[in-house]
Amino acid sequence: MKAGSHLLSIDDFGIDEAHLILKTAQKFEKLLETKRRINVLHGYNLATLFFEPSTRTKLSFESAMLRLGGSILPVVGQTTSLEKGESFPDMGRVISSYADIAVMRHPKEFSVHELCKGSNIPVINAGDGANEHPSQSLVDLYTVQKSQGRLENLTIGFLGDLKYGRAAHSTVKLLSRYPINFVFISHDKLKLPESVLKVVKDNKSEYEETDQLHDVINKIDVLYVTRVQKERFLDLDEYEEVKTVFQVNRGTLIDAKKSLSVMHPLPRLEEIQREVDLDPRATYFDQVQNGLYVRMALLTILLGKVRNVDGLKALEKL
Amino acid sequence: MKAGSHLLSIDDFGIDEAHLILKTAQKFEKLLETKRRINVLHGYNLATLFFEPSTRTKLSFESAMLRLGGSILPVVGQTTSLEKGESFPDMGRVISSYADIAVMRHPKEFSVHELCKGSNIPVINAGDGANEHPSQSLVDLYTVQKSQGRLENLTIGFLGDLKYGRAAHSTVKLLSRYPINFVFISHDKLKLPESVLKVVKDNKSEYEETDQLHDVINKIDVLYVTRVQKERFLDLDEYEEVKTVFQVNRGTLIDAKKSLSVMHPLPRLEEIQREVDLDPRATYFDQVQNGLYVRMALLTILLGKVRNVDGLKALEKL
Amino acid sequence: MKAGSHLLSIDDFGIDEAHLILKTAQKFEKLLETKRRINVLHGYNLATLFFEPSTRTKLSFESAMLRLGGSILPVVGQTTSLEKGESFPDMGRVISSYADIAVMRHPKEFSVHELCKGSNIPVINAGDGANEHPSQSLVDLYTVQKSQGRLENLTIGFLGDLKYGRAAHSTVKLLSRYPINFVFISHDKLKLPESVLKVVKDNKSEYEETDQLHDVINKIDVLYVTRVQKERFLDLDEYEEVKTVFQVNRGTLIDAKKSLSVMHPLPRLEEIQREVDLDPRATYFDQVQNGLYVRMALLTILLGKVRNVDGLKALEKL
Repeated sequence: MKAGSHLLSIDDFGIDEAHLILKTAQKFEKLLETKRRINVLHGYNLATLFFEPSTRTKLSFESAMLRLGGSILPVVGQTTSLEKGESFPDMGRVISSYADIAVMRHPKEFSVHELCKGSNIPVINAGDGANEHPSQSLVDLYTVQKSQGRLENLTIGFLGDLKYGRAAHSTVKLLSRYPINFVFISHDKLKLPESVLKVVKDNKSEYEETDQLHDVINKIDVLYVTRVQKERFLDLDEYEEVKTVFQVNRGTLIDAKKSLSVMHPLPRLEEIQREVDLDPRATYFDQVQNGLYVRMALLTILLGKVRNVDGLKALEKL
Repeated sequence: MKAGSHLLSIDDFGIDEAHLILKTAQKFEKLLETKRRINVLHGYNLATLFFEPSTRTKLSFESAMLRLGGSILPVVGQTTSLEKGESFPDMGRVISSYADIAVMRHPKEFSVHELCKGSNIPVINAGDGANEHPSQSLVDLYTVQKSQGRLENLTIGFLGDLKYGRAAHSTVKLLSRYPINFVFISHDKLKLPESVLKVVKDNKSEYEETDQLHDVINKIDVLYVTRVQKERFLDLDEYEEVKTVFQVNRGTLIDAKKSLSVMHPLPRLEEIQREVDLDPRATYFDQVQNGLYVRMALLTILLGKVRNVDGLKALEKL
Repeated sequence: MKAGSHLLSIDDFGIDEAHLILKTAQKFEKLLETKRRINVLHGYNLATLFFEPSTRTKLSFESAMLRLGGSILPVVGQTTSLEKGESFPDMGRVISSYADIAVMRHPKEFSVHELCKGSNIPVINAGDGANEHPSQSLVDLYTVQKSQGRLENLTIGFLGDLKYGRAAHSTVKLLSRYPINFVFISHDKLKLPESVLKVVKDNKSEYEETDQLHDVINKIDVLYVTRVQKERFLDLDEYEEVKTVFQVNRGTLIDAKKSLSVMHPLPRLEEIQREVDLDPRATYFDQVQNGLYVRMALLTILLGKVRNVDGLKALEKL
């Protein structure tokens, strides 16, 4: 991932590039303590193409762009020419004439890759169906490091729907690059797919699988909760049963470490009870906030304003 | 209503705070005579959450933010995670990470109060169903003072649908804090509700009720017209009859004072005929314009940039 | 077309005014080679009213406004009070309170003229049904001049649906003011309407009509391709036949001039094959890019920032 390139997958960056992203995000977090704007991207336009509902992701990219002094060109689904049958490459080409960088979410897998075929500007994949959502995984990585102070010697549990949850897949793959142990906690019908497990094995990460959260909660450093979607179950009684088993509440946390971080990509429904919000171990709203810093870092790096860790000092003067 | 607080109801501010709002709005009106931007809120983001159609209110807040040098983060209904079942408090919390102040309109009463439970930033209620729309009432207050030169010794008539009209309810309550006489002119089926009348009585305002506009038009200083909605009548013949009785046209104004102000929260349909637009007593488009000044004042005060009347001088240098 | 006036039709400007628009666009194209912002319109708000899907036009106006240092107030169809029955003149009046200039697209012919009745600010017609879309024709004019180096002694072919294509009608009328020969290439059922042909004749332009592209391709300087819409044919077999006849592919261009410019208002479907994109004669994406410069020129001129060619020098300092 270099200046001018796209960010479509977590495979677009390696350990060193992830390190630069985290360092840059950290710098922005620090700078925003005393400032509301860091004018790195004054004069730049971000095109936002969201063909699916989104609050967090769309807002965090737009907010990131504004905090960097840039401007937003929203291209929402219902007002675009795609309805007239325009191809993704043509749309990519058109947007290149008007914006300096683009972010896209679309329900169709690899649609963003099609867009890139025509694009002359960097494009960030903000979710292409069940495929990837790399910036979310970077936010997760940043949140793990920030809340636990390190990216090694950690035991990270993933709870809930590990079969269909796009966010969990990418984040597991990304975290497996670091010396981290995994615990995958899910109903038998919602286990992590073999394809993701293969990456974990290839990276020589240790892992275990269980369907009992209370058996493992005491050894977990980070508990990453995902939503179990009702639609996945043909039998609603089965859903109701599973739902309660994987619900995190005050009771769930009694045996957990004091240093535990409870994460969730949000929106959350009943899988984390509101009573947990006040627990200092609730990290999911901090995760939202981190989305701002990480996206500021991504926009800045992709637009060539930060090329290495030494370049971060220059941000202080803006 | 102080820096950092919410504005959900007209009960969130008293006479002194209303005075500061009006003075600040007046200052902005003056400053905009020679400037297009007063950079009080440079670097601040306003999130706009409009879950219902709106032109005037949404535009006036957005325009106010831009004229103050701030930026807009639009969060329209159809692209939000509320569709995925996210709660209002969670959405409030999320928006707090990305914006500095928010404004929300939603068809459900007290939904904005739910949003505030999670919000760490000031929130302005721009209409929660049939409940409140306090900034509109402040615009009305400003318009009465500006057009009549005072907020005392006035006779103000409210015409049309006084039963269901949200704008009229809040404005009546707010105006009843001042030495003002009310005339409520409506069809028997569309009279002001007892709950609003109680506030008028508690504030010891004088009032009368009638269903004949022409009996009272000559003594009225401000005529506040509201829309009579067809949907309120089971019998369409009855609607057609009522409609014409409460229609303001050139004839209606023959017996009116020369200093009369005709107001309307807009959009207007047939209840004010277009021929009235050219009459100098037509004040409803000035009311629209005043929306800009009053919303600039609200944003500035809620974000702590003006704390008292002395603070207004500082705005001149921006 | 002067400062403060509307741009609703190509009849709103003459040869001299078109010349100023082209010169101003050219200046912006030059300035954008080294800058991302030319702050001519800092502090100004552009209201965008798009009641129909649009990518190119909406984005190019918004992008133009941002590149000029101005701000955008989007007023999308589904969140406006027009749903509540507000009239166009009232909406025009309301928008005048909040924006400095407006651009509107609406499916109803002459709806933008209605809006202007209430508007106190300049309004640009970005398409009112089958009627006009003058800024597109100016972009076409600019593209012809830029790609061919002149606006005289040219043979310009229009291909495809010449009966219903709004863009083609306005552009033909505009180009007929210059010493240009026309070749209209279409299926018999999709010929240029008599009303447009009348303007061509009145302007004493030479023209011919044919249904065979290959008979004329060798003498054409600019080939303006338009989409043939399936909906126009009752008989789908007939559509399939026509479709291929008027498709531009690599083979089509074998007999064409080396200096040919292939234009298309986009979005394109199958009428220009993707294999043509890499041909240096493909000019349609350059046309998109030119949309930015021409719209920057229009906004600047309508807001009184450039009044004549001498005024262009002042832009260099911004």
